[in-house]
Amino acid sequence: MKAAFKIDAPLVERYVLELARHGAHSQTGVSRPVYSSEWVAAQEQVMMWCSEAGLAVRRDAVGNVWARLEGTQQERAIVTGSHIDSQTPGGRYDGALGVVAALIAIRTLKEHFGTPKVPLEALSICEEEETRFHANFWGSRAIAGQIRDGEVNTIRESNGFSIGDAMRSVGLDPVRIREAARTDIEAFLELHIEQGPRLEDSNLSVGIVNAITGLRHYVVTITGRADHAGARPMSSRLDPMAGAAEIISGVIDEAIRIGPPAVTTVGTMAVEPNLTSAVPDRVTFTIDARHPDPKSLAQLYKHHESKIVSVAERRGLKASWTIELDRPPCQCDPELVSLLERTARGQGVPFLTMHSGAGHDSQQMAEVAKVVMIFVRSVGGRSHTPAEFTTVDDAVAGITLLAGALYELAY
Amino acid sequence: MKAAFKIDAPLVERYVLELARHGAHSQTGVSRPVYSSEWVAAQEQVMMWCSEAGLAVRRDAVGNVWARLEGTQQERAIVTGSHIDSQTPGGRYDGALGVVAALIAIRTLKEHFGTPKVPLEALSICEEEETRFHANFWGSRAIAGQIRDGEVNTIRESNGFSIGDAMRSVGLDPVRIREAARTDIEAFLELHIEQGPRLEDSNLSVGIVNAITGLRHYVVTITGRADHAGARPMSSRLDPMAGAAEIISGVIDEAIRIGPPAVTTVGTMAVEPNLTSAVPDRVTFTIDARHPDPKSLAQLYKHHESKIVSVAERRGLKASWTIELDRPPCQCDPELVSLLERTARGQGVPFLTMHSGAGHDSQQMAEVAKVVMIFVRSVGGRSHTPAEFTTVDDAVAGITLLAGALYELAY
Repeated sequence: MKAAFKIDAPLVERYVLELARHGAHSQTGVSRPVYSSEWVAAQEQVMMWCSEAGLAVRRDAVGNVWARLEGTQQERAIVTGSHIDSQTPGGRYDGALGVVAALIAIRTLKEHFGTPKVPLEALSICEEEETRFHANFWGSRAIAGQIRDGEVNTIRESNGFSIGDAMRSVGLDPVRIREAARTDIEAFLELHIEQGPRLEDSNLSVGIVNAITGLRHYVVTITGRADHAGARPMSSRLDPMAGAAEIISGVIDEAIRIGPPAVTTVGTMAVEPNLTSAVPDRVTFTIDARHPDPKSLAQLYKHHESKIVSVAERRGLKASWTIELDRPPCQCDPELVSLLERTARGQGVPFLTMHSGAGHDSQQMAEVAKVVMIFVRSVGGRSHTPAEFTTVDDAVAGITLLAGALYELAY
Repeated sequence: MKAAFKIDAPLVERYVLELARHGAHSQTGVSRPVYSSEWVAAQEQVMMWCSEAGLAVRRDAVGNVWARLEGTQQERAIVTGSHIDSQTPGGRYDGALGVVAALIAIRTLKEHFGTPKVPLEALSICEEEETRFHANFWGSRAIAGQIRDGEVNTIRESNGFSIGDAMRSVGLDPVRIREAARTDIEAFLELHIEQGPRLEDSNLSVGIVNAITGLRHYVVTITGRADHAGARPMSSRLDPMAGAAEIISGVIDEAIRIGPPAVTTVGTMAVEPNLTSAVPDRVTFTIDARHPDPKSLAQLYKHHESKIVSVAERRGLKASWTIELDRPPCQCDPELVSLLERTARGQGVPFLTMHSGAGHDSQQMAEVAKVVMIFVRSVGGRSHTPAEFTTVDDAVAGITLLAGALYELAY
């Protein structure tokens, strides 16, 4: 049952490094926002490699690149890939490694085993990172038919340039965006760097993802009353900073209390009027709360909201929040998880079955296909930084697992 | 012993409102930074009123306006006044009321009692608020001979314009700044709005200030490690926001524990990289800590610094701070405090002897003269906002007390 093939490690390294030249940033980073000239160059590079591998290449209406190896049977396609855009700056591996993995896995299978029964496709998704436009999952949402009317005009950079304008600037017609939708995909397998430390902590090269976390982004505003820092006694202050500090400590402690994999992060704060000598009038901060289990996630949200309300009430402050992002957890397909686990065991590769704490294109693809993900170890758990790094050995282990599973599904 | 005079309430109101036209902001506010055209107009207005009152008017080398009523004896002068500049925007009363009070008090005494024994001077100080330049107490520091060589060039707006450039733009020569120093002032009496709620809470029009708070501005930087908000478990985070929240709660609680008049304020925060989905790398915030008693102040500082160090150590974070402002407490002259208390009792005016939680020009004037302050009630304790308000009745009560004390000192 074990397929006899070998992933070409020097080729993996070469493709990663060559792709990283498009939008190269500092010594080891990449800055490649969607529809930029660097992005165009990267997608053209991917198309060229896919053509060289003898795959049928096309760019869809939203700028995703597809490379198809036709099967002998008229079946729904098995697709693998990830996104080509990056943080600004990010590293060389986030997204890009999954694109390289897809095309090398399919190329390797083609070279060793020829034409599959089931069509195989490598996919380079145009946008996931939300760095240029608040449009994240733009590529996978287009594939899943989830882009709403008007988004091409309403999603804009701070300078007013819309994502539709950006599409036109690279020769894409926003009117045709619905043509990117696919309904003929059986399974989507995404290889991605872990972006966290769990594989490193477990001394493992690869992880098999059984769920992608659900998450909310709360924007919390605590309003008190601005006062002179010297003339207003402590006893009669309505200090939103004191309230915010108590809430921040409270929500972070709550995630610790619920226990892994619950995570809660306060990553931003804005203070008005932001003067050293004035009690603030208003403090705004964000809460990012995540859990892959729907029930635990609901519990986490409820505790956070209660904490905000109770602290504000006790302190005489006004509290309000908006939910800027609300993503339910995504369960990976249990049969695909089992297939990956069996394949890894067959390859003699130890692995961790784990959830993803980050969002991924797979959760959008899950609208139209069965999905599963493979994680490869991130050195130091680093991501979204030029310091991000994954060894060639770990990348090869992940791609070998991916190719093995594709073989099982398609040959 | 009680001097028979009456402060002209409509004149007080008229002067306050007319002064507020120079730099008028929104319905009830003022924006009048030092050396602006509004500032020039306000100082010219003050000079005109002083000339009308028969006082000898001059503008000194730094732009302070002095109006002198010569005495029959060659003695050191009794000076009263406050600052003419404002927050941007602030209210009509902060600073300006003390200037109006000075000239109306001296004018009233001159009208009722003629030439004093001791020279009396009204003073309109050019700058106190630090709103345009980080130069606060610029006017009173010039009088006290405390402006250091080079400050005229190194103190600059964000656009690069120096305070020396600003002086030249209104016809002042920065080279002559030392000529503004005075060594012939016996006493400085400053009337100012309270900017806090204590007089209102006590249902009193006036306060007599026996000390001005000491204070420090700490800029605290807590450095941790940026991490993905989803992929990094809580247990291995080095989260500077969690540390900052604990420190902020701790220092605020410490001021409450020490008790009034200790006050501690965290009024600013900056987060890097300030992303919703990332544990921050670094959080910077300010601590403003105040107490009028030197020993309690030292205790407050020590507790705050210990809190920063201990929280950071326990959480594996790096903590550092700079002290951007360090002002020792200023004790008012006990004899002047007693004189004001006696005068108030003689006038049948109930009062509160209190400290000032805000800094004032008087603490710089204390370098070269005995000082004391009179506070008048601020409605709602509001200040540094167009909503700042003091009734004419309260202003008149304060000016009556000021004039009564000047009478005792000069006639």
